[in-house]
Amino acid sequence: MTAGTPPLYIKLHRADNVAIIVNAGGLPEGSAFPCGLVLKEPVPQGHKVALADLAAGAPILRYGETIGYAVRPIARGCWIEESLVRLPEAPVLDQLPLATRVPDPLPALAGYTFEGFRNADGSVGTKNVLAITTSVQCVAGVVDHVVGRIKAELLPRFPNVDDVVALNHLYGCGVAINAPAAIVPIRTLHNLMLNPNFGNAVMIISLGCEKLTPERLLNEGGDPVQVAGDDVVCLQDEQYVGFASMVDSIMALAEKHLAALDRRRRETCPAADLVVGLQCGGSDAFSGVTANPAVGFAADLLVRAGATVMFSEVTEVRDAIHLLTPRAATVEVGRALIREMAWYDRYLALGQTDRAANPSPGNKRGGLANVVEKALGSIAKSGTSAIMGVLAPGEKVRQKGLIFAATPASDFVCGTQQLASGMTLQVFTTGRGTPYGLAAAPVIKVATRSDLAARWHDLMDLDAGRIAEGTATIEEVGWELFRLILEVASGRKRTWSDHWGLYNALAVFNPAPVT
Amino acid sequence: MTAGTPPLYIKLHRADNVAIIVNAGGLPEGSAFPCGLVLKEPVPQGHKVALADLAAGAPILRYGETIGYAVRPIARGCWIEESLVRLPEAPVLDQLPLATRVPDPLPALAGYTFEGFRNADGSVGTKNVLAITTSVQCVAGVVDHVVGRIKAELLPRFPNVDDVVALNHLYGCGVAINAPAAIVPIRTLHNLMLNPNFGNAVMIISLGCEKLTPERLLNEGGDPVQVAGDDVVCLQDEQYVGFASMVDSIMALAEKHLAALDRRRRETCPAADLVVGLQCGGSDAFSGVTANPAVGFAADLLVRAGATVMFSEVTEVRDAIHLLTPRAATVEVGRALIREMAWYDRYLALGQTDRAANPSPGNKRGGLANVVEKALGSIAKSGTSAIMGVLAPGEKVRQKGLIFAATPASDFVCGTQQLASGMTLQVFTTGRGTPYGLAAAPVIKVATRSDLAARWHDLMDLDAGRIAEGTATIEEVGWELFRLILEVASGRKRTWSDHWGLYNALAVFNPAPVT
Repeated sequence: MTAGTPPLYIKLHRADNVAIIVNAGGLPEGSAFPCGLVLKEPVPQGHKVALADLAAGAPILRYGETIGYAVRPIARGCWIEESLVRLPEAPVLDQLPLATRVPDPLPALAGYTFEGFRNADGSVGTKNVLAITTSVQCVAGVVDHVVGRIKAELLPRFPNVDDVVALNHLYGCGVAINAPAAIVPIRTLHNLMLNPNFGNAVMIISLGCEKLTPERLLNEGGDPVQVAGDDVVCLQDEQYVGFASMVDSIMALAEKHLAALDRRRRETCPAADLVVGLQCGGSDAFSGVTANPAVGFAADLLVRAGATVMFSEVTEVRDAIHLLTPRAATVEVGRALIREMAWYDRYLALGQTDRAANPSPGNKRGGLANVVEKALGSIAKSGTSAIMGVLAPGEKVRQKGLIFAATPASDFVCGTQQLASGMTLQVFTTGRGTPYGLAAAPVIKVATRSDLAARWHDLMDLDAGRIAEGTATIEEVGWELFRLILEVASGRKRTWSDHWGLYNALAVFNPAPVT
Repeated sequence: MTAGTPPLYIKLHRADNVAIIVNAGGLPEGSAFPCGLVLKEPVPQGHKVALADLAAGAPILRYGETIGYAVRPIARGCWIEESLVRLPEAPVLDQLPLATRVPDPLPALAGYTFEGFRNADGSVGTKNVLAITTSVQCVAGVVDHVVGRIKAELLPRFPNVDDVVALNHLYGCGVAINAPAAIVPIRTLHNLMLNPNFGNAVMIISLGCEKLTPERLLNEGGDPVQVAGDDVVCLQDEQYVGFASMVDSIMALAEKHLAALDRRRRETCPAADLVVGLQCGGSDAFSGVTANPAVGFAADLLVRAGATVMFSEVTEVRDAIHLLTPRAATVEVGRALIREMAWYDRYLALGQTDRAANPSPGNKRGGLANVVEKALGSIAKSGTSAIMGVLAPGEKVRQKGLIFAATPASDFVCGTQQLASGMTLQVFTTGRGTPYGLAAAPVIKVATRSDLAARWHDLMDLDAGRIAEGTATIEEVGWELFRLILEVASGRKRTWSDHWGLYNALAVFNPAPVT
């Protein structure tokens, strides 16, 4: 938003009694809009202004939904600051309509392709990465050491391999591995090693005394995985005398897999072979107006092209679940959505908290009053198609179309869980800005505001803020993103996080206790 | 244990009706001992043999304590395999004797010193490390990138600084930061940046929208910390345009702190200035016979010299708590011990598990039948002195003498929590072998068996297995360890984990939900 731009607000739905201020830096008291509205006090960018006089207790409507109730009378033209909004109850889970408004299938979209790495099992990767799986956190130091040597000494000899990634994590031992919730981290780690970007080249570094034995890791949490005996290096094995012998053994194993991966070549694949994950982090009030609707438009394009699209983040879906269960393709899918919401409600209750723990201080500074407003903006990413399936955390996706993959909203955790579910490219929207990135799959970062996109010009991959400024439509940015996805998935265009090598640690979701 | 060694077992307490087999590789059926015992079946190394006929339901005694009950009759000379041992109930917490057998103060031990880095607040470090604190996981990729550049471009100019360490973690946002248990990770991160090895050179990298704001991090969880305004770099600040500007700012701040740290010099300090943490990982049946008693002897020497010694690992103390509460210096300390046990009992129960989740498959292969046997061996590390104080997880230690610092037993978590409590050197015992290491403080690794020490000759720092072989006494190894602690704390001797740079990721204990 350049200086001198006239006062601008966005009202999203005909029924809304609030709008958000577009202008960078916000607007001063007295700012007058063409509709006749005059600000009675300064309103920061992204924050809400009352479009009508609101009585105490009156519903505050955004997206055509009640995001809260006025705690005291609020006059037209006043700033609806966060503390003036009373949080509504979350939708009651046993009274939701299931599959009552299933969207008709969107018209098929043919002719879009990307250059991917096809695997023997039919899946297609967007990168060619040697992943070194670890059955337990204790080996991480050794694996980090060896990865350094592999990158320096071996990788240059295998030019078709993009990278070597240690799948280090904090699970495997010192955990209650037979607690009911342990299935989540176990299946996450099991499915993680099967991500299509890793080309089925499974190698495991084990310590030898851990609870998550290589056998459990290979056989629990999903389809059993067959590996050659020498694909598992166990550091406590008696054959290893001295540190160098362990390093040599891992290097030799890595070399075998690098040679196999090096024979992979990109080939033309239909867009239907994509598995795209959607996420937002550091959201603001523009997320649901610019970036997320554009992502939703691109999600519809991907679904029309036959691809798999996953959206996630339970606490950022929970308060909009009544808008999703009608879109479930079947009653069973609707029930599965409710199952995941209920599981998370209980998980939070055990920790003596609830979904209101979600909005961060930055979300609030960005204009999001509470988790209801955040959720309504968040689900815009899901577009308009029918929800075809639901995954429990860490389950592997086996369907095309729009899928709800239940994960925490916590960025690092969501990314890790989506990788386990088979995501090969992620689209990440941000309003406040975050240097988020994944080593295992490319991440396209979409800014909700043009001033962020300008400031973080070498960290943000796409500027959706143009939508708020009126210089691009949701459809235009959606198409841009769709085409960018195909470019990045083909290795023709590099994301900024890949350019700088800015990568998150894996954060496996472990809802069970440590011991 | 060399080939041809005669059959050897260790019986620890006069009342014991089991002993453990010392010989590497175990012993075959028919092996005869000088006492007349003949093995009725093969018994693996470290595993238990019945010294008398045991009736079904009879108590099985080791360390003079009941480690379980025979599930069926077991004849003298038979292998007491894990499945034959029924787990006893844990000691009932409200019926324990408190401070009823407080050990007399041990005789003072004067004249022992080390060369340490004394800080303005009186604390003394064993290393001189620039720590880069992060208020939120989202900045980790950026910090990793910058640390690489600091090490390459700045550190060589500051020869008195040992290392630069990113205090990366998985906390700060996407977490229920107002849940009751959130105090644990918050105070852990708060106190972590104050570890004496970091020389009070606090610098924080923040994103800007996180829940754990720099203000909360500096002011909650312990004594408020004052820093200069420019000691906090917030990546979302509007002054940063482009990635390079963020990197430059962090580099400049690091240079300022490196220059200050570079002025530190080692000086002669009494051993009383040490804060030593004790831990075991990958334990076996020898842990409680060789390494842990030797560590316990060294712990007594440290206490006699006026130092602070922390032992930890709640689930590995829980079943021996009745042996610890009488040693509490006061009734209040005894109650604090019980408070921490009760907290953990509840935490495990919420996850539908209990302390029996603890022994790992490797512990069991090493001869430990259950968590009771493991705990009895684990507490040998605490020596014989009075327990002077108890810390809740992540609290900063402020006392001399033997302290129980409550932490999970999970190795990475225990190490992180002890660092937060102010530990400047750790002693880590292992029977199965683990490449454990900490970047922030030296870790001395003690092998429970000589065959492990020989095989991992460049990963283990001390061989306590000689005790089982009769070539060294507990006292001798204890003194060796005490002297080694002083050498390592002085920077004169390097541990193997420091030699290879094998370091764990930090694993902050977060018992609250992620969102």
